[in-house]
Amino acid sequence: MATVIFPPPPAKSELEEARVFTPHFDEHGLLPAVVVDAATSEPLMLAYMNAESLALTIATGEAHFWSRSRAQIWRKGATSGNVLRVIEMRTDCDQDALLLRAELTGDGVACHTGRRSCFYRVVRAETDGAPAGLIFSDN
Amino acid sequence: MATVIFPPPPAKSELEEARVFTPHFDEHGLLPAVVVDAATSEPLMLAYMNAESLALTIATGEAHFWSRSRAQIWRKGATSGNVLRVIEMRTDCDQDALLLRAELTGDGVACHTGRRSCFYRVVRAETDGAPAGLIFSDN
Repeated sequence: MATVIFPPPPAKSELEEARVFTPHFDEHGLLPAVVVDAATSEPLMLAYMNAESLALTIATGEAHFWSRSRAQIWRKGATSGNVLRVIEMRTDCDQDALLLRAELTGDGVACHTGRRSCFYRVVRAETDGAPAGLIFSDN
Repeated sequence: MATVIFPPPPAKSELEEARVFTPHFDEHGLLPAVVVDAATSEPLMLAYMNAESLALTIATGEAHFWSRSRAQIWRKGATSGNVLRVIEMRTDCDQDALLLRAELTGDGVACHTGRRSCFYRVVRAETDGAPAGLIFSDN
């Protein structure tokens, strides 16, 4: 189904400055993709793409990922209806991470827990004399 | 040097709703950390933390990562002066990714190429009848 063949990454200097997209997948054939709201830049989620899900994302304009827990292609929103429409895709200097600026459709939530963003918890050091550790505070 | 001991991740439901931070490191002992500008949410970079760099980040308020290429702890800005001051740290539903809202210090650039953000290239399909592939357009 994937029709885009991604060339292998070139030397480091070329990776950073070349005009050709040569995504650098890890040893599992994956790279992380950060999704942010296209309008506000609010971070929504982080998931992984393999070459096929990346090609599907480019071909359809809808975010597809590789589900590491289910070991299968995962069209985001396939069951929930909360499809991510990709407005823009960027990669980073090393071409081993992606940034998707996306519009949320459906119920407007990106997280499977029903929250808008997966990043709903702030990590804070405990300050109440409780046992050492880190707790979450409310969003 | 790391003084924070992170508890192991609990069952999935507890991972998502519990009040205790139990970061879920991958088989290499790493998790991805997305850094965004604290004021604007502009995505700046993605790097990896192990338990020690995470503990150092929490202890110092300055972003530390694990350099996979150099296989060592990397205090961001140690040589460039472009330290990332962490304003807030979040984790996601699965606790296997971090989001840092940070202030850029020094020259105000996060990318080692001298650009503010590592995500300086937009991926676009070629439309000029050139060989099939994906190219970058300017930022």
